[in-house]
Amino acid sequence: MSSQNVEDHPKDEGTDTEDATLPPTYLVVQVTSKIQEETLRWLIDKLKGRKRDGGGELIVMKQPVNTADSFILHISASKLKLLEVAEEIELVKTDRFGKRREFTVAQLEDFVFDGMHVDDLLTDSEKQTIVRHELENIRALTEDKSLPGYSTHKFYEGQSIFQACQHWGIVTKVYPLHDRETLKKLGSSWYMSLFAQQPLEEIRLYFGEAIALYFKFLDFYTRALIVPVVLGFLQLLVSRETVPFFCVFNVVWVTLCLELWKRKSNELAFMWNTIGMTSMDEPRPNFRGTMGIDAITGKVQPQSPRYMTYVKMYGVSLPLTVVCMVIAFYVMLLPFWAEDYIKQLDESHQQYIILPSLIYSLVVPIMNVYFRMFATFLTEWENHRTQSQYDRHRVTKLVLFEFVNNFLSLFYIGFILRDMEMLRSQLRNMLIMSQAICSFQEIIQPVAMNYYSRKLQRSKLKLSPSTSQPKLFKNDKFVEEVNILTDIKIPTIQPEDLRVKQALKEGEMEIYEDPYDDYLELFIQFGYVFLFSSVYPIAAFWALLNNVLEIRADAFKLCKVFQRPMCRRVKDIGAWQRAFEVLGAISIFTNCGILYLSPGLREKTSNFSEVQLLLTFVFLEHILLGIRYLLHIAISDKPEWVRVALAKKNYESKQALKYEISQKNRRLTLTRKFKTVHGPHSH
Amino acid sequence: MSSQNVEDHPKDEGTDTEDATLPPTYLVVQVTSKIQEETLRWLIDKLKGRKRDGGGELIVMKQPVNTADSFILHISASKLKLLEVAEEIELVKTDRFGKRREFTVAQLEDFVFDGMHVDDLLTDSEKQTIVRHELENIRALTEDKSLPGYSTHKFYEGQSIFQACQHWGIVTKVYPLHDRETLKKLGSSWYMSLFAQQPLEEIRLYFGEAIALYFKFLDFYTRALIVPVVLGFLQLLVSRETVPFFCVFNVVWVTLCLELWKRKSNELAFMWNTIGMTSMDEPRPNFRGTMGIDAITGKVQPQSPRYMTYVKMYGVSLPLTVVCMVIAFYVMLLPFWAEDYIKQLDESHQQYIILPSLIYSLVVPIMNVYFRMFATFLTEWENHRTQSQYDRHRVTKLVLFEFVNNFLSLFYIGFILRDMEMLRSQLRNMLIMSQAICSFQEIIQPVAMNYYSRKLQRSKLKLSPSTSQPKLFKNDKFVEEVNILTDIKIPTIQPEDLRVKQALKEGEMEIYEDPYDDYLELFIQFGYVFLFSSVYPIAAFWALLNNVLEIRADAFKLCKVFQRPMCRRVKDIGAWQRAFEVLGAISIFTNCGILYLSPGLREKTSNFSEVQLLLTFVFLEHILLGIRYLLHIAISDKPEWVRVALAKKNYESKQALKYEISQKNRRLTLTRKFKTVHGPHSH
Repeated sequence: MSSQNVEDHPKDEGTDTEDATLPPTYLVVQVTSKIQEETLRWLIDKLKGRKRDGGGELIVMKQPVNTADSFILHISASKLKLLEVAEEIELVKTDRFGKRREFTVAQLEDFVFDGMHVDDLLTDSEKQTIVRHELENIRALTEDKSLPGYSTHKFYEGQSIFQACQHWGIVTKVYPLHDRETLKKLGSSWYMSLFAQQPLEEIRLYFGEAIALYFKFLDFYTRALIVPVVLGFLQLLVSRETVPFFCVFNVVWVTLCLELWKRKSNELAFMWNTIGMTSMDEPRPNFRGTMGIDAITGKVQPQSPRYMTYVKMYGVSLPLTVVCMVIAFYVMLLPFWAEDYIKQLDESHQQYIILPSLIYSLVVPIMNVYFRMFATFLTEWENHRTQSQYDRHRVTKLVLFEFVNNFLSLFYIGFILRDMEMLRSQLRNMLIMSQAICSFQEIIQPVAMNYYSRKLQRSKLKLSPSTSQPKLFKNDKFVEEVNILTDIKIPTIQPEDLRVKQALKEGEMEIYEDPYDDYLELFIQFGYVFLFSSVYPIAAFWALLNNVLEIRADAFKLCKVFQRPMCRRVKDIGAWQRAFEVLGAISIFTNCGILYLSPGLREKTSNFSEVQLLLTFVFLEHILLGIRYLLHIAISDKPEWVRVALAKKNYESKQALKYEISQKNRRLTLTRKFKTVHGPHSH
Repeated sequence: MSSQNVEDHPKDEGTDTEDATLPPTYLVVQVTSKIQEETLRWLIDKLKGRKRDGGGELIVMKQPVNTADSFILHISASKLKLLEVAEEIELVKTDRFGKRREFTVAQLEDFVFDGMHVDDLLTDSEKQTIVRHELENIRALTEDKSLPGYSTHKFYEGQSIFQACQHWGIVTKVYPLHDRETLKKLGSSWYMSLFAQQPLEEIRLYFGEAIALYFKFLDFYTRALIVPVVLGFLQLLVSRETVPFFCVFNVVWVTLCLELWKRKSNELAFMWNTIGMTSMDEPRPNFRGTMGIDAITGKVQPQSPRYMTYVKMYGVSLPLTVVCMVIAFYVMLLPFWAEDYIKQLDESHQQYIILPSLIYSLVVPIMNVYFRMFATFLTEWENHRTQSQYDRHRVTKLVLFEFVNNFLSLFYIGFILRDMEMLRSQLRNMLIMSQAICSFQEIIQPVAMNYYSRKLQRSKLKLSPSTSQPKLFKNDKFVEEVNILTDIKIPTIQPEDLRVKQALKEGEMEIYEDPYDDYLELFIQFGYVFLFSSVYPIAAFWALLNNVLEIRADAFKLCKVFQRPMCRRVKDIGAWQRAFEVLGAISIFTNCGILYLSPGLREKTSNFSEVQLLLTFVFLEHILLGIRYLLHIAISDKPEWVRVALAKKNYESKQALKYEISQKNRRLTLTRKFKTVHGPHSH
């Protein structure tokens, strides 16, 4: 009944583009050019195949120009398919009555109103999400033992075929294409305007919830820094006696801000309808398990007992992570020991005093790279059901390791060597160094690379004989293997179509994995600013300055340098919330400790014994821990209006369930009554 | 349609009792005998009146024999009314398919199956809950300016009339009658069998969720004590060097048990369908506010902005509570100062050395009584919406005050005076004293009172001329005012009906307010056992012994000594969970502190400086705080099966809501289409 609306306008589609017959590209998939023809055919069949045969029901197109290494496929989907999946993944849209609720195909007419076209119902990023969802949920059936043409590449039942092919290098790249027009509008209101509010809703629509939430957090955190910056300057102006006040204030401020962020985050999650995401949601594509009926939804999904994940996490991953942390800790100590050793040598060797820290600063990034691979492997092996769980546990491992690498040397200097001057200079060096490196990596490097790659392209173009068709990267290999593609009967996108060039160009761009590195940068900065804030109060200022630029740099990077990232739905910043909170708790200890060790305070309290000073430290720390706990209790996680709205929705659903059951039972009862009166067993 | 089942058996009711025409009594209400006739008539009209006229639609009966001070009314309700309210308060019953779900009248046939009688659907305690719910939800309408006959007793719109009358002393008592038969069965499997499992489900059905949860908690806590008891004995046998291990173990054990209790509690709440209770639920009868439409349910309910409650709580109640705590703290210090003063006097005054503590131990209970009244007043004034919130905030205030009274003297002895011997003896005295007093109050006193009151009754009976009718408490006053009752046309229960005697007798019994005192007793015991466990490890044994007896004593008390308490639904132990957790956190500090001060450890570590010892203490404490945090994170609040079941229910409700909306919209669309075709505005 309601699908009629969709069928009404089949001729409307893409009338203003050159290829009136071909649907738009939602995702580009690059397949290795070394692929067997048999495999490619099977893969395309899977993509196009019907749902009940284990297919994705997607539209696959090819393009005449490919790169040397891979064939480029354009993935699209029919309008009806898009709407069906939109319902399945519980997309929320605004209906005719201005209310945001989950879209269903049966109620299509409610969502398409006031002369709105059915094509405009779903945004581009929603369509991409839908296509990717379908792509990744093509799962191996019982009969799919292994990848055709590669008998060593075995599937297990229920495995995501697409993810497996990515793992094996059959599929080399997957990316959506940028929407130049929207991107231009977005950029002008985002990274081009230095003091305006970030266009959060537009960011969410274009890049998805995960990235929008990162920028919101960055914004929130940057604003929260203003108060410590102002106080830091005041402290410099007034006197040194403000240190205890400053220390207490900072701890309270950090706790307060993190609690308020939790509220804000829940508010956003409610508006984005991600607040209800749980570990029971649809499994991530890489979730391993035998296909079975889900206890909650009744859908056929891979099932794997949760306790196995716990056993792996606490039995294997946790101990291994701790071992890695201990190793990193000893590696951190090595330069200190080496420096001590060099100092004991005669004059002629003193020139080498800089060597140990230099070597250490080179070793750390290498350790990080290896640990990151290791943590990813472990987390994958733990087999978490949802993407959020996976991210949370991966980030937790990485953060623990990064904590040792970035902060433990400061602890060592502050509390073992007790050298406040060295701590201050180390803190300054590390803060400025890390920010400089990040800024270079994020701003200068990509701009330069952008510039040079264009130059390179231009010179390449000059070298190859220019034709009417763009023949970038064309070489012998491409010509040799083109037959595989030409034999396969799928629509071909015309070479003059802009998508062809875009698919080639954006395929070469860097990939933006997830905001992990961006969060990590903030995390390390947060640590430098708040853990030892009383030693180097001006840190907050450098951080603020950095972040104002960072917002624009990250924005520029996303819009201009990277491949368009896939949209990801998240309900919060995941493990980062806890990581920042723990850092806040540790900052209580470190700040009190510095207060206890600070020479200024010792001079003023020279009539205090060492034990009395230490007891004062213990007392102050416990008071602050108490304040932290009280703030945590007093500030509710969700704003009142969100709680009311959630309760209302819950109430309405419950009423609806009651009504549904009553309707069902009424039918049952009527049937039974009818039988009683007319049936053979009446009594 | 389904109400037909109810009407089918109107003659079945109570055929085996003497008064075939009168329905059973669910609640007894005592009204002061000084009441104006006008007032009594108005009150009874309100009780009987129709819902749309602001009445309770209840059945009211009188009895011929009343006490000197009050008239006794028996409250009942029609079967249909009971079922209707059962649906309204979202009672959960098991349906024909063995599934527990919310009862609805429309689906009555689903819940009454296999020859089950419709009367047996609701348990006695459910019926009582329903009647009380209706009683307390008779609310003052706009035209009810004041209580008829008492122009000074003003109502505000939406006020619970019944609660107001209780407040003004018009209604003196409200209580359900005991069910002798069920009680006997319950008693024999509960307090009569010393080593059997408590019959938790029967307790819940008879006494309600709040009391069942208290007994479950008592049981859980008592079992958890076994491990510290065993370890305590082992420690005595082996050597003194186990103190650090014992201290660490205790802290971990306490955290672990409290986390596991939270799981257990959530499991029970799920099975009892109280897990979904929120602060948005139906307001408590005393909740003040103007009548308005509830944002969640759309029902007309008193509305009051939440922020006012927060302002009152944090602006007034919290500071006042802190002031009271500080006063209590100084009162606690007075005896120490007085003792010091006496010690400085000459020999002849040394006999008075015992006086200060004696006076203090007399002052504390008095302070407690006054603070309890004050806290109740404050919490009432804060105007919390639900009973759970009210209880939580009242208990929080009381616990803070009790903490100062019960534990701060131990802190003073341990950490200011640093007298470990005095701490041990004080701890022993307080533990044994408090348990002895409680046991006396709970076991010996009620048994003795029971005995003497019976003796008294018997002697009274001998004095009054015995007639065929029981004329207990009959005197001139009763005869004088009986006219008021006889004039009012409501059914009269015959004097030979057993209910009459029961109503009179149980009206004189003590009232069991809530499990507050019982929880408090456990809380104080928990503090004595775990805060300073390393000083007096045998405390756990005394506690265990006490609790094994306590279970039976409390059970006996509830079954035999007290009026039958009203059933109360709760989802957890409320503020007590947090109170025990905070005590657990404080125990980390105290146990580490005692370890630091313990002379035994100092002897062994004589090569350590004072500062080194203190630093060791700080280090150990932080490690333990870290372990506590990890346990808190690692142990999920709800067991897996509860989470799955909740997610499933949530999923089903959401699906039902979608379905309902689609049905509604279909109807709307059809109507619109019909109009378009046939209406005047077709185009």
